[in-house]
Amino acid sequence: MEAHTFLLQLLIILVAASAAGELVAAMGAPSVIGELVAGIILGPSLLGWVEPNDLLRVLAEIGVILLLFEVGLETDMGKLLGAGRKSITVAIGGFLAPLILGFAITHFLFGQSLLVSLFVGGTLTATSIGITVRTLSDIHRHNSPEGQITLGAAVLDDLFSVALLAVLYEFSVTGEVNWINAAKVLAYISVFFLMAPVLAKLMSRVINVLDQRIDNPGLIPVTIVSLVLFFAWLAHLFGAPELLGGFAAGLALSRRFFLPLGLAVQTDSAFAHKIESQMKPIVQLFTPIFFVMVGVSLDLREVEWSSWFFWAFSLALVVVAIGSKFTGALMLQEPFHRRVVIGMAMVPRGEVGLIFAGLGSAAGILVNDIYTALIMVIAYTTLLSPFWIKLYYRMFSQYFTNETVKDRA
Amino acid sequence: MEAHTFLLQLLIILVAASAAGELVAAMGAPSVIGELVAGIILGPSLLGWVEPNDLLRVLAEIGVILLLFEVGLETDMGKLLGAGRKSITVAIGGFLAPLILGFAITHFLFGQSLLVSLFVGGTLTATSIGITVRTLSDIHRHNSPEGQITLGAAVLDDLFSVALLAVLYEFSVTGEVNWINAAKVLAYISVFFLMAPVLAKLMSRVINVLDQRIDNPGLIPVTIVSLVLFFAWLAHLFGAPELLGGFAAGLALSRRFFLPLGLAVQTDSAFAHKIESQMKPIVQLFTPIFFVMVGVSLDLREVEWSSWFFWAFSLALVVVAIGSKFTGALMLQEPFHRRVVIGMAMVPRGEVGLIFAGLGSAAGILVNDIYTALIMVIAYTTLLSPFWIKLYYRMFSQYFTNETVKDRA
Repeated sequence: MEAHTFLLQLLIILVAASAAGELVAAMGAPSVIGELVAGIILGPSLLGWVEPNDLLRVLAEIGVILLLFEVGLETDMGKLLGAGRKSITVAIGGFLAPLILGFAITHFLFGQSLLVSLFVGGTLTATSIGITVRTLSDIHRHNSPEGQITLGAAVLDDLFSVALLAVLYEFSVTGEVNWINAAKVLAYISVFFLMAPVLAKLMSRVINVLDQRIDNPGLIPVTIVSLVLFFAWLAHLFGAPELLGGFAAGLALSRRFFLPLGLAVQTDSAFAHKIESQMKPIVQLFTPIFFVMVGVSLDLREVEWSSWFFWAFSLALVVVAIGSKFTGALMLQEPFHRRVVIGMAMVPRGEVGLIFAGLGSAAGILVNDIYTALIMVIAYTTLLSPFWIKLYYRMFSQYFTNETVKDRA
Repeated sequence: MEAHTFLLQLLIILVAASAAGELVAAMGAPSVIGELVAGIILGPSLLGWVEPNDLLRVLAEIGVILLLFEVGLETDMGKLLGAGRKSITVAIGGFLAPLILGFAITHFLFGQSLLVSLFVGGTLTATSIGITVRTLSDIHRHNSPEGQITLGAAVLDDLFSVALLAVLYEFSVTGEVNWINAAKVLAYISVFFLMAPVLAKLMSRVINVLDQRIDNPGLIPVTIVSLVLFFAWLAHLFGAPELLGGFAAGLALSRRFFLPLGLAVQTDSAFAHKIESQMKPIVQLFTPIFFVMVGVSLDLREVEWSSWFFWAFSLALVVVAIGSKFTGALMLQEPFHRRVVIGMAMVPRGEVGLIFAGLGSAAGILVNDIYTALIMVIAYTTLLSPFWIKLYYRMFSQYFTNETVKDRA
């Protein structure tokens, strides 16, 4: 592709994202919905101006990695670990329930094979960490108690989904379930998560020293982006999603990071501020590309609107997809309205669901009417969850306002 | 290409650029040399870790467009226009002399055909605006009187080269020289340059109003990058190099922009500051990719080190390439040391020379030993000019220091 063709595509994406985002925000909905819809309109579903290609996919990937980096940067690790047990409950419930229920209705109610039903269940397990996080931060609730629980749960859910995908993919090829491999994947990822923040912290100390000694205003953007890319690459090497590498790097560089065993490593406050102010414009430039590209990848032309099976199946799946994600949240010992928000925030499937369904389709496991029903479920949960969450907050604002005051005190 | 492979390449480029840049800067040379050498080492010439591909080419292109945007942003239009007549002299001299001398020695001394000799002369006309600008700003001389003259001359030189390339390319296909087409190219580009800053200014006013009304921290990075991409694309549409679109947008948004006919449009100072501080990290992230990729594109494996013709021809061309670029500068009525710096700053051929030679080679006009001799000339002028310029400033610093004080007073 020639450079100027690509420049035009990038231009269209950025302009459409900010126009649609602002329009939707002006109407009172989270701006992420505008960016997703902009993608659907620009993509093959409608106008066909933007086709998913390698270049845009990579920029989108960098966008979501940087978004998770920023989320990590703003995370209070004490709060995140404090919410840990609750996050685990939400993640396990929100992983097992969609898997089992999705499998059950596909296999027993719609008579699909074991493998197909497992892939459908697997697709329903995936929570889109990007959309969840962005929705909560659009309405300034990402540092709330429910925000911390959801963030931890979404990270864990992403890991479970990756391990499940590895198992299912191998099952589809060899016909055998290799639990040892799945355990290996989880073990590798755990090692990554134990080591990465410590390593990132050490590297950031080196950058801090360099920054004080060298008079080069370009040092921070280049070295910090390099650090983030390195951990994204490292995450992939350990079998984890790349965006979680960005999250680990962000955590390590956050103001409230601490090492285990009480080895507190104070982050230099001036340095943290410098990183935040210089990284923000870069993050804000790249992330809309990700959300627009999620919309572009949702090819609604493939949906068979006239098929009876499609409507029945997708309707059943939507009910399961939404209902099952509340399982974990409702098991918590938390005020009811908080449990509801956590459940809602786990609903969007977004890009993770698309990857799952796309792999199943590419492997010939998910035939067209099943695949398009999944696309429909992903579109519905991705586009409407941010809206419902914001609406719920607005309707029951009195509960949340009191809490925030209490939490701060 | 898979995303993580690309992330690794990008990571290697960024890390190598900043490490080599700092190393070279610590040794007292301009850091741009480090980035170029990093590219040669990483590229096919040596390690072969980074191959030029579409993705990297586009990011590099965005890098140089953003660099020229920043240059435009920091340009005092009054000074640039004040230097206008001198810039024209330098540009015409530095365009015609390399073309005529390069043609003459290739045709008469080395007995090459008319078309080949014209292409060699054409390749020698191109000044690398990116490397020239970066070298001067590495040593904080881009706003000096000689910096302004050189900047204007480099912009004009780029335009002349594009027009010449259009003529030569058509000549190579049809066998006829179409002066009308060349005039058309120049006319279109002139229209672009008259209209673009005015249009960019109007659009920036809209962005300013939006920024004041909308509470969205991501507005500036996304809209300003969109604006720059739009003008790069528009420049291409009018037949001008894309990077000059970035320059036009930067000029329009600079603090000292004014419209003709005394229609002064004051740039809101807080807005200008916001743009500068938010765009700087983005520009600094992308520009090293450009310089590393220039190094990567310089494939020194192709050089036939054992050919007598290669050594004689490239040596002759190097002498012509350097000497001829002083023609315009020496015709100025300026202090001698200033004329020398202007001449030196016009020497690097960089990416523009590579494009010229690459097109000639792809069209089958420049056979291997001629093409590699040109690559050698481009490598030599690109890598060593920044070094000589810095050395010259250091050796004759007393002249320049006095001037700067006088200019500021």
